[in-house]
Amino acid sequence: MPGNSFGECFRITTAGVSHGRGYLVIIDGCPSGLPLSEEDLRPDLRRRRPGQSHLVTQRDEADEPHIWSGVFEGKTDGTPIGILFENEDQRSKDYSDIKNKFRPGHADFTLDAKFGFRDYRGGGRSSARETICRVAAGAIAKKLLSYQGVRILGYVKQIGTIISPTLDLERLTLDQIEANPVRCPDPETAIHMENLIESVRKNRDSIGGLAEFFAIGVPPGWGEPVFDKLKADLGKAFLSLPAVTAFEYGKGLGVVTARGSENNDLFYQKIDKKIGTTTNNHGGILGGISSGEPIICRAAVKPTSSLPQAQQTVDQSGLETEIITKGRHDPCLLPRFIPMGEAMMALVLVDHWLRSRSNRLNQLCELPQDSFSLAK
Amino acid sequence: MPGNSFGECFRITTAGVSHGRGYLVIIDGCPSGLPLSEEDLRPDLRRRRPGQSHLVTQRDEADEPHIWSGVFEGKTDGTPIGILFENEDQRSKDYSDIKNKFRPGHADFTLDAKFGFRDYRGGGRSSARETICRVAAGAIAKKLLSYQGVRILGYVKQIGTIISPTLDLERLTLDQIEANPVRCPDPETAIHMENLIESVRKNRDSIGGLAEFFAIGVPPGWGEPVFDKLKADLGKAFLSLPAVTAFEYGKGLGVVTARGSENNDLFYQKIDKKIGTTTNNHGGILGGISSGEPIICRAAVKPTSSLPQAQQTVDQSGLETEIITKGRHDPCLLPRFIPMGEAMMALVLVDHWLRSRSNRLNQLCELPQDSFSLAK
Amino acid sequence: MPGNSFGECFRITTAGVSHGRGYLVIIDGCPSGLPLSEEDLRPDLRRRRPGQSHLVTQRDEADEPHIWSGVFEGKTDGTPIGILFENEDQRSKDYSDIKNKFRPGHADFTLDAKFGFRDYRGGGRSSARETICRVAAGAIAKKLLSYQGVRILGYVKQIGTIISPTLDLERLTLDQIEANPVRCPDPETAIHMENLIESVRKNRDSIGGLAEFFAIGVPPGWGEPVFDKLKADLGKAFLSLPAVTAFEYGKGLGVVTARGSENNDLFYQKIDKKIGTTTNNHGGILGGISSGEPIICRAAVKPTSSLPQAQQTVDQSGLETEIITKGRHDPCLLPRFIPMGEAMMALVLVDHWLRSRSNRLNQLCELPQDSFSLAK
Amino acid sequence: MPGNSFGECFRITTAGVSHGRGYLVIIDGCPSGLPLSEEDLRPDLRRRRPGQSHLVTQRDEADEPHIWSGVFEGKTDGTPIGILFENEDQRSKDYSDIKNKFRPGHADFTLDAKFGFRDYRGGGRSSARETICRVAAGAIAKKLLSYQGVRILGYVKQIGTIISPTLDLERLTLDQIEANPVRCPDPETAIHMENLIESVRKNRDSIGGLAEFFAIGVPPGWGEPVFDKLKADLGKAFLSLPAVTAFEYGKGLGVVTARGSENNDLFYQKIDKKIGTTTNNHGGILGGISSGEPIICRAAVKPTSSLPQAQQTVDQSGLETEIITKGRHDPCLLPRFIPMGEAMMALVLVDHWLRSRSNRLNQLCELPQDSFSLAK
Repeated sequence: MPGNSFGECFRITTAGVSHGRGYLVIIDGCPSGLPLSEEDLRPDLRRRRPGQSHLVTQRDEADEPHIWSGVFEGKTDGTPIGILFENEDQRSKDYSDIKNKFRPGHADFTLDAKFGFRDYRGGGRSSARETICRVAAGAIAKKLLSYQGVRILGYVKQIGTIISPTLDLERLTLDQIEANPVRCPDPETAIHMENLIESVRKNRDSIGGLAEFFAIGVPPGWGEPVFDKLKADLGKAFLSLPAVTAFEYGKGLGVVTARGSENNDLFYQKIDKKIGTTTNNHGGILGGISSGEPIICRAAVKPTSSLPQAQQTVDQSGLETEIITKGRHDPCLLPRFIPMGEAMMALVLVDHWLRSRSNRLNQLCELPQDSFSLAK
Repeated sequence: MPGNSFGECFRITTAGVSHGRGYLVIIDGCPSGLPLSEEDLRPDLRRRRPGQSHLVTQRDEADEPHIWSGVFEGKTDGTPIGILFENEDQRSKDYSDIKNKFRPGHADFTLDAKFGFRDYRGGGRSSARETICRVAAGAIAKKLLSYQGVRILGYVKQIGTIISPTLDLERLTLDQIEANPVRCPDPETAIHMENLIESVRKNRDSIGGLAEFFAIGVPPGWGEPVFDKLKADLGKAFLSLPAVTAFEYGKGLGVVTARGSENNDLFYQKIDKKIGTTTNNHGGILGGISSGEPIICRAAVKPTSSLPQAQQTVDQSGLETEIITKGRHDPCLLPRFIPMGEAMMALVLVDHWLRSRSNRLNQLCELPQDSFSLAK
Repeated sequence: MPGNSFGECFRITTAGVSHGRGYLVIIDGCPSGLPLSEEDLRPDLRRRRPGQSHLVTQRDEADEPHIWSGVFEGKTDGTPIGILFENEDQRSKDYSDIKNKFRPGHADFTLDAKFGFRDYRGGGRSSARETICRVAAGAIAKKLLSYQGVRILGYVKQIGTIISPTLDLERLTLDQIEANPVRCPDPETAIHMENLIESVRKNRDSIGGLAEFFAIGVPPGWGEPVFDKLKADLGKAFLSLPAVTAFEYGKGLGVVTARGSENNDLFYQKIDKKIGTTTNNHGGILGGISSGEPIICRAAVKPTSSLPQAQQTVDQSGLETEIITKGRHDPCLLPRFIPMGEAMMALVLVDHWLRSRSNRLNQLCELPQDSFSLAK
Repeated sequence: MPGNSFGECFRITTAGVSHGRGYLVIIDGCPSGLPLSEEDLRPDLRRRRPGQSHLVTQRDEADEPHIWSGVFEGKTDGTPIGILFENEDQRSKDYSDIKNKFRPGHADFTLDAKFGFRDYRGGGRSSARETICRVAAGAIAKKLLSYQGVRILGYVKQIGTIISPTLDLERLTLDQIEANPVRCPDPETAIHMENLIESVRKNRDSIGGLAEFFAIGVPPGWGEPVFDKLKADLGKAFLSLPAVTAFEYGKGLGVVTARGSENNDLFYQKIDKKIGTTTNNHGGILGGISSGEPIICRAAVKPTSSLPQAQQTVDQSGLETEIITKGRHDPCLLPRFIPMGEAMMALVLVDHWLRSRSNRLNQLCELPQDSFSLAK
């Protein structure tokens, strides 16, 4: 019932708040034998980290992961992996300003309604800093998936009205995405986006955007046919991230105006004799199960709620007041959202990989001769 | 690990396929004392039923629910509610045509990849007929929620490029929605939609659309702050329905081009002294937790994959072939989608209602006057 | 949260009461490709059935299973298996006698306390008739396990003070156990037990006993090291059966007076080069994980609570009264308990078999020659 | 699927090994508003701690808990409680002796079989040191339960053949139990037990025992009627503790020789008008649900497997060898087992308290007038 775990077979549980002592994550269900050290976690943590460019908040956190358990002599040993992060930059701040006021767009009011009170320092449990746990766990998931040949990437597709041209996802590389602080691999678009974000910041405002994620190499057969469809679990994963207001996969909202005759992807036999589809409107998922085509999805991210300008609100007693965010905040969440989304995609996929391990009796054991004709 | 259950506290488990003996659903976690009979289930089942209008498939199923357990002397008794549906209209059909072919847009290929073979009669487990179980369970969820004053409705907002004007959701009634076969409460739009669907049908094609759902009366405080955010569980719920390719809540994809200063909803004190927001871009959910404002979300539904025209595909051995759907299929899934979506929304909300019952110690027991002194 | 499901990967959910329309069980997580029909379920259902001998209740139920879903063309298809039982022998009985009285030893009072009221016909949800679902699911679990070479049996070890001599479990056969109505494979002991039960019945009383269960062929490595130890899950499984008041495995309660030097089982290398232990005080489980030795456990079953003699009790208003059970009841539950216990053991073992499928990365994929170099 | 969590509504997840960096536990589902600090955890941790008396291992660990999250301004805030323990006394030991050998009675062999290798320092994940997490979480559970008036205690009932006389549990106090290092509240028996343990230690051997636990103040109605019976969840909880080989509640194994007429507990009305039973053979649980009588159960604990004498075994290659435990080990596990057992009992009870919060519709909301006659 409690809501701080994610996944069925590869399950993560997180704890911690933005201005407390730090964060903990326990990853349960990781198979033994995976080479693992803190060094495997750092690249994605660095991509998520504040202060990495002029576009994002300057809060200075080392975000250094401490693997507390689950790794022995350089490899996972099958026991739960505990990872610990310390909050270093807890400025001795005066919170009296926000202690009793509800910041618009934030969870202050709803947390109070739920629990009777809240940790009013920063976002408390609702802070996006919690995703540090997910990104670390996601890095492990990605590494596991790499043994199956699965590669996951995300990039910024749109900020405001500036849209990236369509890209050849199968050729897209991490380096291209990381080549600029916006994480849009089209260099020209990236510059426009960067300028837009800068101008928004100067206006003491913030702006939203759209990010696209894809996984290449997922074989056909992952996902469950009814409730735990791959699209459903991906949807939950992305919508569980702060600020995400919409999720779509494949053609997504585009299906609203589509005809079936154009939306259906036709099957054909590929050169390698495998079965594929000539188009990929289905985003690699049919009936909730992976088809072998690239899995493609997108998430819309709202503009940062914290604004360095006065906003009307009320305090806990209902009296009208106003509030100005003084802290350090990204004018656009998208660049740092990329590693978070990739992590969630990896967590879903590794979970369904493990879940798919007992789909068929002939995966479990040699079937006797006479049942081969049945269960091939 | 298996994927045929949904919900944590109010949990449903379904079984059955479209052309087998029928469907079973077990609803576990329903509190005792709720007056319940088959009559409570029939209205929504009728709205979901095939053959209800000229717009939808003419398959003739009574869809009569049989409450098998969990109700004693007219009330739920706290034990699991079992409901049984028989498949009546199993035409002795010749399936040789689709047995070995993969229908485009369907789960035929992916089910084969997952399980080694599939029930090739109709969609098998992937048939939307499985939602009969969800609609029945959802009717129970709705009735429970009505005791808390929560009202859930859905309607068709867009089909193809025909969009309903913005409606005053708080005044919208079930009767208005049911007034026409499209389930768009704006009469003029409904006629346009109906005409569009008819013309698509004549072209042996199908068309997609968008449906909007809302819940009024949810108090602040339902939902969990991290993984089991209300928006995440709603997203999973809707994306677990067949043909849904996108989910959004509140302003949804509209946030991509929004500025924070316009997207934030400002808090104010309402006449009844409760705290509300002047606008509802947040769709009733802040930080994953209900705010007390109406919860509003939308789902995009793709055009029906089964088409009465020839489509290219391959058979199980990879040979190229073509396929024409001969059966009875809706040219547009949206009208019958409404009760399915309402059911999933109800299941999520009743689950989070029950989950919210232990948020605070003072809900569990009278706290002593000075509870701090008890801290020994 | 609701309590009507059992198992993680091979999960069963049951519904129904003893005097309602019947029972439903949904088995989720059964791999595809297992040949299955009602005939596979009947033998164990017959062993569980009332009326099978003069020792047990004469209630006449066909206990005929109807596989409602999950089997296609004679094999499981990976979708949930639904099984339905109808209650046939619902005598139009006068329940006024027990409607408002609390039967000693039964759940009447506690169900009322929990749910506010109860189905007073028979035991309602607490009736041992619910185990019909478990026995059917257990038969499927047993059949799956047989592909892995696992064999499960149980027998009556003690009734009252009559104890079976120690048996060579590895040579014990189902036929020996089924050779007499008591299900004690030692013929002489069986006669004594039968006589004891008959004399207890004549005294309008009932008697308890002890049953032993074992599984042969479980390979080393099933079970989890901490909470989901094999012994813990077996303990829960057996204690979830009605009337069980104690569970032990291996030497069980005998360890209380044992010295470590005699209780430890010493490792040695067997002729087949496998590692075994010279004794099996550990009942095939070390640290919660199977060792490869036979898994052995026992459950104590209390004497039937329903008695055909007057017992003091109170009614719902607290007034003193007395009650005599008029119905048909076994004077000793042990003979019919054997198939129930076997079923629960099979459900636990098949679950942990499936769970063990992702323990090691080299089960999931071919590891590269020097997998350490992959640690990038 | 992974096995490192326990509980449904009040759920704990643990990580860590005996000779790694330390342990983590995340407690999810604790209601907000509970006053909590490290000081609440220390008393039970001290009772569990090594080195507390001459009877137990002298390993010197401070076992100091660090509350990492979940508490704000002295009270739980509804977010997950993270607690961290550092392993301080990691002697730089030479493990070459046990690295490749399988210690009899330990999980060395089975962990290798499961995960391919193991952390060979101490027991790794199978070390009883993991219970430090459970005892800390159990202290929180106990404190929560105290608000409901529930009191939990355990004591050593038997060591070898030395048995404590029957005690009046309702009058038993923590002070009486803690009055001697054996934790047997009968002073005379305690001395005999102490002497026995000392003599066993001198013989380089170890000895088992039996511990009894009880909870007073649990109201009628906690527990679920079928799989999640209170007795089943208690059984799992105790059997998930290291070295436990048997669990019984109420009359336990004594039912084997009992007649129904003596075993049934008769209902009567108590002076306070509540309904009780004249005896408590049912150990406070009927049909898996609490009856309001004291809940009483017992666990058998095997003699310590580590022995300071040579034992035959094999190494990983199957070669015969022998092993002598050089480390610090308790000759009898019972004294330190008491706080572990109490913790597990508290975790089960608090979980079922929270689970029972939605049993009846009239707990959730005011029922309308006309339904009062139904759901009272």
